[in-house]
Amino acid sequence: MTGRNSFVLRSKPRVVSSASFVGEKEGEGPLGSCFDVVCRDDTLGLKSWEKAESRMFESAVRTALFKIGKTTDDLSLLIGGDLLDQIISAGFAAREIRAPFLGLYSACSTITEALMLAGMLTEAGFSNLAACTASSHFSSVERQLRFPLEMGVQPVPTAQRTVTGAGSIIVADKEMMNSIQDPPFSHVALTGGTIGCVEDYGITDANNMGAAMAPAACKTIVSNLRDFNRTASDYDLIITGDLAKFGSEMLYELCGKEGVDIERNHNDCGKLIFGDDKTAVCGGSGCGCAASVLSSHFLPLIETGELKRVLFLATGALLSPTSSMQGESIPCISHAVVLEHIEN
Amino acid sequence: MTGRNSFVLRSKPRVVSSASFVGEKEGEGPLGSCFDVVCRDDTLGLKSWEKAESRMFESAVRTALFKIGKTTDDLSLLIGGDLLDQIISAGFAAREIRAPFLGLYSACSTITEALMLAGMLTEAGFSNLAACTASSHFSSVERQLRFPLEMGVQPVPTAQRTVTGAGSIIVADKEMMNSIQDPPFSHVALTGGTIGCVEDYGITDANNMGAAMAPAACKTIVSNLRDFNRTASDYDLIITGDLAKFGSEMLYELCGKEGVDIERNHNDCGKLIFGDDKTAVCGGSGCGCAASVLSSHFLPLIETGELKRVLFLATGALLSPTSSMQGESIPCISHAVVLEHIEN
Repeated sequence: MTGRNSFVLRSKPRVVSSASFVGEKEGEGPLGSCFDVVCRDDTLGLKSWEKAESRMFESAVRTALFKIGKTTDDLSLLIGGDLLDQIISAGFAAREIRAPFLGLYSACSTITEALMLAGMLTEAGFSNLAACTASSHFSSVERQLRFPLEMGVQPVPTAQRTVTGAGSIIVADKEMMNSIQDPPFSHVALTGGTIGCVEDYGITDANNMGAAMAPAACKTIVSNLRDFNRTASDYDLIITGDLAKFGSEMLYELCGKEGVDIERNHNDCGKLIFGDDKTAVCGGSGCGCAASVLSSHFLPLIETGELKRVLFLATGALLSPTSSMQGESIPCISHAVVLEHIEN
Repeated sequence: MTGRNSFVLRSKPRVVSSASFVGEKEGEGPLGSCFDVVCRDDTLGLKSWEKAESRMFESAVRTALFKIGKTTDDLSLLIGGDLLDQIISAGFAAREIRAPFLGLYSACSTITEALMLAGMLTEAGFSNLAACTASSHFSSVERQLRFPLEMGVQPVPTAQRTVTGAGSIIVADKEMMNSIQDPPFSHVALTGGTIGCVEDYGITDANNMGAAMAPAACKTIVSNLRDFNRTASDYDLIITGDLAKFGSEMLYELCGKEGVDIERNHNDCGKLIFGDDKTAVCGGSGCGCAASVLSSHFLPLIETGELKRVLFLATGALLSPTSSMQGESIPCISHAVVLEHIEN
């Protein structure tokens, strides 16, 4: 261990493949051409948005495995979750996938919790092929966590739009990677990470997730830099999951107070995915945001070496409609993984 | 790895302490004297049952650590979850505990998922003191997953009563254990486990959880025996989480079809906790059932050597009210850990 929150992965577990399924609006954004599949009908022809989200989760796993000539039978582990009550998107997808399944709940930081666990379990020899997967769906999340879409509630200026999307990222040990012919990625390694603690600055506005989550991201960045004895510039990019425009500004301010300047080498999946689309207000959010953008936009940049070392941290807001109605503030968490370009 | 689903823990991570908080009805049952704290008021004087459940989760962790002279600052990891939407009991407790937090959702099998992960992460050197914790609360669960209590809905003959309770189990490496003066347990080791796949036999009755979950338990038991090359009699006891009376009968039948006879050395936390109390119908259920009964009834029996080797598996039903209303069947999962008495 390196510090209380951080860990080093000496065996450098590899990211060998990934896949993303997104909705039409995400496909129309600036990253549209990166995603594997853009679903023009967000029900996928199924009877409910919930069933569609689960199918996207499942399809992302199968597609990522297909790219390396594997099937779900080859998986050591399926690790992941989503935002819905009792993580039904992941649970029902796991029923179809039939691999040993570790269900997680970490709100929008689920994909980083999955990657951390896959990294540690691969390092320890408990997994040689793990699918880390997370999903969200605008329409299933809105009606479960906020309001029925039929109400036509207008977003507030700090609102973010839940991404319809799923991303699956395949983590393998080196031996497994070497046995795969032409994997999509052969130069991307998980070299460490930082496990978050829950932070709560007392924000009670469930329409201002960026502000609620920024302190958790700041804490995890500062812990990571201290534990690894690095400065922000030791990372080509520090990538957050879905702080979006407002949360990112808050993050710069909070990091500044800790003496860390990340403004020049920070980006955020929630800011990127919808570009300047004003209907998304501050940007994207949801488990599927970080998962799909990492899968399809950032991993290829690490593979080519355009990015040599990144700190990827997603943030999760651990509230529920019940806790909000009971007047509770919003506890948040942020987990980080270090992804590096390596020559072999 | 031993088979696809199972793993061996060669370093034998130790269970050094545990604590349980339960409600009044659980305290009146046959195990009443085992639990650390029986809460006479199931709100704990707080404003909601949800806040009370979270406090029980937190208190179980603090009490288990207190018994070994440790505080939450000493934790490498807090691992756990609960049944509520977005696992708010665990999330809000983690805010108070302030340790690196891995949130899980695996319904009533959460405590075994937590123990498996703690075992593997301890074996790999990523944790030396982990608190595995799960909770449930009759009143918070009923109104979230079934009906408001005020409706007075009568239970059906296959119903189970959600346990009000939390259990926390502390997993340490051997070095940490040796540094603790007189831990409650010094002869209890985690020696392996079996990670479940999701099973679904098409049952759609959310009031018949035992029947829905029995196939997952059967599958995990059969996998475990095959992977470890053991027979049922190699375990002094095979303990399930909350199949209760009806589900246990189904388990015997399903195991029998696989040529495995477990009837003579099986027990179930859900059958035990309420004894013959007819108001609990088939018995107890909920994340807190397996967690509190393992914490306070079974671990002491392993410590004394009365039980030399047990297979402990909890089962989780991965449904939600939304999936039930959409006519979906109930996917279930069962994770198992092997607990052994060792001389040290």
